[in-house]
Amino acid sequence: MSYDLIVIGSGPGGYVAAIRASQLGMKTAVVEKAELGGVCLNWGCIPTKSLLKSAQVFDYTKNAANYGVKIDGDIKPDFEAMVGRSREVANGMSKGIEFLFKKNKIDVLNGFGKIVDKGKVEVAGDKGKKEVYEAKNIMLATGARSKELPNLKQDGEKIIGYRKAMTLEKQPESMVVVGSGAIGAEFAYFYATLGTKVTLVEFLPNVLPNEDEEVSKQMARSFKKAGMKVMTNSSVEKVDTSGKKCKVTIKTKKGEEQHEADIVLSAVGIAPNLEGIGIEEMGVELENGKVKVDEFYRTNIEGVYAIGDIVHGPALAHVASAEGICAVEKIAGENPQPIDYGNLPGNTYTMPEVASVGMTEKQAKEAGYEVRVGKFPFTASGKASAAGHKDGFVKLVFDKKYGELLGGHMIGQNVTEMIAELVVAKKLETTGHEIIKSVHPHPTMSEAVMEAAAAAYDEVIHI
Amino acid sequence: MSYDLIVIGSGPGGYVAAIRASQLGMKTAVVEKAELGGVCLNWGCIPTKSLLKSAQVFDYTKNAANYGVKIDGDIKPDFEAMVGRSREVANGMSKGIEFLFKKNKIDVLNGFGKIVDKGKVEVAGDKGKKEVYEAKNIMLATGARSKELPNLKQDGEKIIGYRKAMTLEKQPESMVVVGSGAIGAEFAYFYATLGTKVTLVEFLPNVLPNEDEEVSKQMARSFKKAGMKVMTNSSVEKVDTSGKKCKVTIKTKKGEEQHEADIVLSAVGIAPNLEGIGIEEMGVELENGKVKVDEFYRTNIEGVYAIGDIVHGPALAHVASAEGICAVEKIAGENPQPIDYGNLPGNTYTMPEVASVGMTEKQAKEAGYEVRVGKFPFTASGKASAAGHKDGFVKLVFDKKYGELLGGHMIGQNVTEMIAELVVAKKLETTGHEIIKSVHPHPTMSEAVMEAAAAAYDEVIHI
Repeated sequence: MSYDLIVIGSGPGGYVAAIRASQLGMKTAVVEKAELGGVCLNWGCIPTKSLLKSAQVFDYTKNAANYGVKIDGDIKPDFEAMVGRSREVANGMSKGIEFLFKKNKIDVLNGFGKIVDKGKVEVAGDKGKKEVYEAKNIMLATGARSKELPNLKQDGEKIIGYRKAMTLEKQPESMVVVGSGAIGAEFAYFYATLGTKVTLVEFLPNVLPNEDEEVSKQMARSFKKAGMKVMTNSSVEKVDTSGKKCKVTIKTKKGEEQHEADIVLSAVGIAPNLEGIGIEEMGVELENGKVKVDEFYRTNIEGVYAIGDIVHGPALAHVASAEGICAVEKIAGENPQPIDYGNLPGNTYTMPEVASVGMTEKQAKEAGYEVRVGKFPFTASGKASAAGHKDGFVKLVFDKKYGELLGGHMIGQNVTEMIAELVVAKKLETTGHEIIKSVHPHPTMSEAVMEAAAAAYDEVIHI
Repeated sequence: MSYDLIVIGSGPGGYVAAIRASQLGMKTAVVEKAELGGVCLNWGCIPTKSLLKSAQVFDYTKNAANYGVKIDGDIKPDFEAMVGRSREVANGMSKGIEFLFKKNKIDVLNGFGKIVDKGKVEVAGDKGKKEVYEAKNIMLATGARSKELPNLKQDGEKIIGYRKAMTLEKQPESMVVVGSGAIGAEFAYFYATLGTKVTLVEFLPNVLPNEDEEVSKQMARSFKKAGMKVMTNSSVEKVDTSGKKCKVTIKTKKGEEQHEADIVLSAVGIAPNLEGIGIEEMGVELENGKVKVDEFYRTNIEGVYAIGDIVHGPALAHVASAEGICAVEKIAGENPQPIDYGNLPGNTYTMPEVASVGMTEKQAKEAGYEVRVGKFPFTASGKASAAGHKDGFVKLVFDKKYGELLGGHMIGQNVTEMIAELVVAKKLETTGHEIIKSVHPHPTMSEAVMEAAAAAYDEVIHI
C-alpha cells in the first residue's frame, strides 16, 4: 500500500495532521500502537479534566451551604466512580477519533511504526507480524512519556507516574507529589480536594515554575489554603518502599526531612519517545535530545517530518496540533506562516486555574524591554464576587515604547477560557489601548483583562 | 459648590464616568437617590449573577452522582439563604463604589438630581431639603426601570418586576414569566432550576428574540429539558389576581389558554428614567423616547450630556460604562474614538449561557453581505465532554468577500467569558484565517471558536 503521508502516532499532533492532510487531498495513514488519540486524549488532557471536574463538583457540594443549598447528609467522593467517569470520557473521545478517521478516509495501521528506509514505514503488529508501507512523506509524531529519575524509579504501585495516578484503585490517604508543573499541580489539587493529605515538592523556588512569579506565589497560597503542604527549594532524595507506607526523604534548604505517604507521584517532566522508530538507522539528526527540524518541521532527511513532544518547543497538545497542520499545509504546497512560538498559551486546570501566554515580566525585562505592567485582582470583580471565586488576578505586560502586548498571566476561575482573547490580541499585534477600548461584557471575569490593560496605563476604573 | 462635572445617577454609566473624569483631573460629583452603583449593581447584573450561581451549585449538587460524588441525604434549595447571599454580594459591591468614590475624591450628593438651569443641578434630599450645585458639565445617567404593560400592572405581590423577583420571601411553586429577553430568561432558568414550575411566554416566534435564530432554538430546547413550559408566539392578555393564585389568560396562535401561577413576572423590557430631571424645562431634545445625543453623548444643550439606558443603543451596563468614559474623555480634551455599536457584546447567564457580538446571520444577509458561516458544536469538544456540558455551539458569520468577522454567536458553558475574544478580534478587524491560526489552548471550550472559524473555511478538524 502506498500513501502520500504516513503519520506515526495518533496523538493530538498526529491525528490532527492526518485529518488536515486528508482535507488537502493526501492519501493518509496513521500508525498507532495503542489507543487512538494518544496520551493527551487517553491518558492526559481529557481524562484529567474529567477528574478535575469531579473534584470541582465535590468542592461545590462541600461548600453548597455558602451558596444557599442545604444538604442533610454525608458527602463523599466516590473515587472509583470518578475514575470510571474519566475513563468513559476518554473512551468516548477516542471513538470520536475513529469516526473522524473513517469520515476522512484515513487508514489506521495498528502496531509499532518505524522508518526502515526512505519512504518506507514498517508496522509491527500483534504476534510479531510486520508489514511495510510506502509513503511519499513520513511524519514522526510519537509523543512523550513520563520521565523517570534514578532515585524515583516508578514501580507502578507506590511510586507512580501520571498514568497510574489517574487510574488508582482507591484514593490514597496521603501522597507526595514530586514536581509542580502543570501535571504535578493538577494531581496535587485533585487529590487534596478529595481529602488526600498531599505534600507537593518542587525543586525550584516556586510552584508552577514556568509561570510569572506572582502567579506562582498566588498558586502556592491557594494550595496551602486547600490544605496542601507545599515544599519549594526541595527535592526527593530517596523513597523507601519496603514498608506499608513509603518513607520519603526530602532535602530542603534546612536539611533533610522524613515524610510518610501511601503513594509518591513522580511528575518531574516527560521524555520524548525516540526509541525504535528508525531515527538512528535513518540518520535523523537530533539536537539536545529532540529531533532537529526547520520551521516547517522538516528533518534533515528528505520526506521525514517530526512534530509535537519530540521536537523543540513546549510539549503541549495544541502546539503539536498546530505544528502538524503547518507541516501538512507546507507539504501540500500551501503557504502556511511558521508558528509564532512567542504566542502559545499554556493552561493549568487547578482551582484557581492558571493560564498564560507570551513573556513573563521577568523574561520581558531580561529580553531588554522597558515594560508597563497592569494587574487587576478578582477581588475587585463583580462576577468573581457573585460566583464566590475571588482568588487571583490578571497581569499584562506591555512594551513601554510601542505599547505592544508582550505577555498575559492569569490565575482565577475560568482563566483557561479567557486566555484565548490574548492569543488573538497578540496575533493581531494589539496595543494596550485597543484592549482597553474593546468593550468587555459586564459582569464577567474577562473584564479583568480590560482593567489590567487600563491599570498599565493608569486608566483602571475598579481599583 | 462648583464642579467640573456633575453626573446624575451612579449606575455603571455614571460611576464609571465619574471615576474616569476624576482621573482626568476634573472635580466631580455624583447625584444618587438610592444605593451607589445603581440598578445594575444593586438590582440587576450582580445580584442576579449571585442567584444564578446558587442555582448552578444546586444543579451540580443534584447531579453530583454523575460526577462521582456521593450524597446520602436530602438536597434542598434554601431560598432565603440564596437571596441573602445575593443581597450581601450586592451590598459588598455597593460599598466598593463608595470606596472608589472616596479614593478618587468624588463627592456623593444624596438625593434626586434635576437640571434647573444651565450649569445648575438641584439635589432634592430627605425632608424636602433642596440644594443647588454648579457644574461646567452635567451628565444625565439616570438609567431605566422595568416597563409596565397596561394588562400587566405590577402590584409588587403577585405581578412583579425584576426587582421583586430577586427578593421574594419564598420560592413560588409556580410562575409565569412574560418576556424571554435576558432578564426573563435568567429568572425563568433560576426558578425552574430550583424546582418552580415555570411557564415562559414570548410574544415573538423565538425565545431570546435578539439572538441568532439557531441560538434561540437551542435555548428553547435546553429550557424544555430543564422542565420549563416554553410558549412562543404567545402573549399574556389578562391576569386575574383576585384569588389565591393568579389566573393568567395567554393568547396563543391556537386561541386562548388559561394558566394558574403563584407569581407572574413581567420582563417585557425597560423604560428610561426621564421624568423630573429637567429634560422638558431645559428643552433637551428627545428622539423616539430617548435623549438624542451625538457620537460623544452631547445633547442639544451645551454642557449637558446623556449616556446609558436613556440614550439609543443597547441598554447594557458595559455599554453605559463605555459611553461614560468616551464622553468624559471628550470633555477632558482627549481624542476618544466613537464607540463602534457593531461591536458590543451581550450575555445571558442561563445554563447554557448565551453570548453574542455583531450581526446575526439573518442581519448580515439583510445588510447585503454574502456570508460564510461556520459552526462548531460542543458535543465535539473534549473539554465540554470532560465537564459534562455538551449542549451548545459557537457560530461565526464572516463576510465572504473580505473574510471579515461580522458576528459571533455562542451558547454553552462559559461562553459569557469567551465572547471577549471575538470583541477584540472584531476591534482589530480580524479575518477568519487569523482566528484559525491563533493557537487556542487545549482542552478548552474556546477551541470551538477556532474550529467554528475553520468550519467556515472547510478546515475544521473535529467534526
